[in-house]
Amino acid sequence: MEYLQQTFSVKFEYKVFFTSGLFDLGNTCMEDFLLDNATTESVKKILFVVDEDVMKATTGLADKIRRYFSIHKGAQLVPDLILVPGGESVKNNEDHFHNFLNKINEYGIDRHSYVAAIGGGSVLDMAGYAAAVAHRGIKHIRIPTTVLAQNDSGVGVKNSINYFGKKNFLGTFAPPVAVFNDDNFLLTLGNRDWRSGIAEAIKVSLIKDPVFFEWLEQNAEALTARDMEAMRYLIKRCAQLHLNHIASGDPFEKGSSRPLDFGHWSAHKLEQLTNFEVLHGEAVAMGLALDTMYSNLAGFLSAEETQRVIALIKKIGFAITHPLLEVASDDSPILVGLNEFREHLGGQLTIMLLKRIGEGFEVHDIDTDILRQAGEAINEYAALNPA
Amino acid sequence: MEYLQQTFSVKFEYKVFFTSGLFDLGNTCMEDFLLDNATTESVKKILFVVDEDVMKATTGLADKIRRYFSIHKGAQLVPDLILVPGGESVKNNEDHFHNFLNKINEYGIDRHSYVAAIGGGSVLDMAGYAAAVAHRGIKHIRIPTTVLAQNDSGVGVKNSINYFGKKNFLGTFAPPVAVFNDDNFLLTLGNRDWRSGIAEAIKVSLIKDPVFFEWLEQNAEALTARDMEAMRYLIKRCAQLHLNHIASGDPFEKGSSRPLDFGHWSAHKLEQLTNFEVLHGEAVAMGLALDTMYSNLAGFLSAEETQRVIALIKKIGFAITHPLLEVASDDSPILVGLNEFREHLGGQLTIMLLKRIGEGFEVHDIDTDILRQAGEAINEYAALNPA
Repeated sequence: MEYLQQTFSVKFEYKVFFTSGLFDLGNTCMEDFLLDNATTESVKKILFVVDEDVMKATTGLADKIRRYFSIHKGAQLVPDLILVPGGESVKNNEDHFHNFLNKINEYGIDRHSYVAAIGGGSVLDMAGYAAAVAHRGIKHIRIPTTVLAQNDSGVGVKNSINYFGKKNFLGTFAPPVAVFNDDNFLLTLGNRDWRSGIAEAIKVSLIKDPVFFEWLEQNAEALTARDMEAMRYLIKRCAQLHLNHIASGDPFEKGSSRPLDFGHWSAHKLEQLTNFEVLHGEAVAMGLALDTMYSNLAGFLSAEETQRVIALIKKIGFAITHPLLEVASDDSPILVGLNEFREHLGGQLTIMLLKRIGEGFEVHDIDTDILRQAGEAINEYAALNPA
Repeated sequence: MEYLQQTFSVKFEYKVFFTSGLFDLGNTCMEDFLLDNATTESVKKILFVVDEDVMKATTGLADKIRRYFSIHKGAQLVPDLILVPGGESVKNNEDHFHNFLNKINEYGIDRHSYVAAIGGGSVLDMAGYAAAVAHRGIKHIRIPTTVLAQNDSGVGVKNSINYFGKKNFLGTFAPPVAVFNDDNFLLTLGNRDWRSGIAEAIKVSLIKDPVFFEWLEQNAEALTARDMEAMRYLIKRCAQLHLNHIASGDPFEKGSSRPLDFGHWSAHKLEQLTNFEVLHGEAVAMGLALDTMYSNLAGFLSAEETQRVIALIKKIGFAITHPLLEVASDDSPILVGLNEFREHLGGQLTIMLLKRIGEGFEVHDIDTDILRQAGEAINEYAALNPA
């Protein structure tokens, strides 16, 4: 067979910065980044898109951004700050994506200019997708404002919007040029959002880092009491583990394996079934409890470690179970979700389970009967250990 | 400044196959590829999108495809072959993109399944874009049917649709998993399309390969007489130079340099101004003549080599000039086009010129007066050397 072989690699690099008060006049974190990436040949514009709830909750944010760029160098601010709703709605309604593309066009944002998104994971997802496809890719900067986005989705390489009623149907893998984690934004979070992001830290500790799991056990009270020092450590450690995973594995997920999806298959279904009233982290916490209990009942994880995992999840303040997660019959929603996850992966199921705290492994089959028992065991635990 | 550094590389590999009669029952080229990439874990589907003009011009194509997949293994054909118009219209009207996404959803094409596009560059661009963003990237196979797509755009890594009336406003860099160049499709081309693709071969020879330029001079008559042996060589050599350029340079065009855009800045404008009645290759041929003459008048290229280039372009049968390419005043369309190209690159102009046949170099300024003279010199040449 006659052919030409094409082979090349593309290198991607970005920094995740940690700071407080990103737009304080004395803070040069962002200016330094922009100047490091400046070129003599062109003036770079920067277009901001901001979660409207974050804008409301952060006194004077618009003025601060405008003042920052009137004094600091590195990019020319587009004075019009684009406001979008936070949460799943910004991904569900295609209009937000099109309106934002329209602004990119109107303000002449090109491949050397920046789009900067301030918000939770959903806003970053929508803005990152628009930036990835406009002109085949505009440089995008992420400024995540939630625990979840600062320690997990915001530091990664994916973006998306929902389409045909399907979560993340449209999207790309497109690394940001920089991420700025500003812990001041965390002060504006309600308790549910503060807590929700901790689920991803528990998850990553369970599959990758037993020492981090012990740290979480020791710091559970500080975390629920909103101790900022503890949260800063949690976010940085979790972000680091997430970055390491991406860099050492399969960054653009060409294979079927999704180790970071531990506890997520049932969580995705639960979020959808509750119309996202159960937050992502809350659903993940329940998914972690379920897959941990399953790991135990299937004979992989000791009873003692299972207890520790579920106790930690509860101690952080998460509910560990939900009626929609029960296997009541063959067409229970959770079994439908399991099948959808199989389809999403392209035919073969791959589910991460636990061998011990800090070490996951993959299986390709889930026993429906054990899954039912796992749900029952968690219900029993919940009944014996009320919040 | 506190930060975490993320660094990783992603490797991309694909083959460009050369064959005749891809869907002939005895041809195992595609089956071999599919079986090489098969996994035990899942059945892979393949969804075809076909240029409706190619479908009309190729007797029994739909039946051949269906028969091929009923006998050969490696993928499960979606029997519904999606027809789309060829040419710029498939990129201009967003509906084609959305309809195709809808089919991807309807037929459950996932990240392990294939989208295969048969057609000219525009159909491949639209289909490639849809494949790149659905589920964050479905494997896509390109089956280019024109000279231009087989030797240039179809073997590369870009896709796009037009938006806001702007060419390629939306798109990504997303390598195909395989390209199948079937020379039987070239038999269906009209003379203009056959000729048009030769412009990119002249271009790449001028900036990269003086030996290939000489080959083109020696084989100009065979090429215009539609000698298939000569065309096969041209396509393969041009595709090879294109692949080498992508692999050795900046595959996802993070920088400003666009060496393969030699002769293209004015061509893009001309295509747009003539509503794509001047074909891409025809416009590129005129753009090459213009930038070659400019290289001479600006003192970079010898008169003798300038003559050879323009003579070859004419000998292939291209027009070398167009009224819209003349610099008649400060707001002549061509100067508007120059400015749009500058904006497209992000502020600094970078234009490839010739030092000698086979060696290009970049400048960051174009002298309007020399550009006017270059246009006049070509008009003069055209008047003295009628077709």
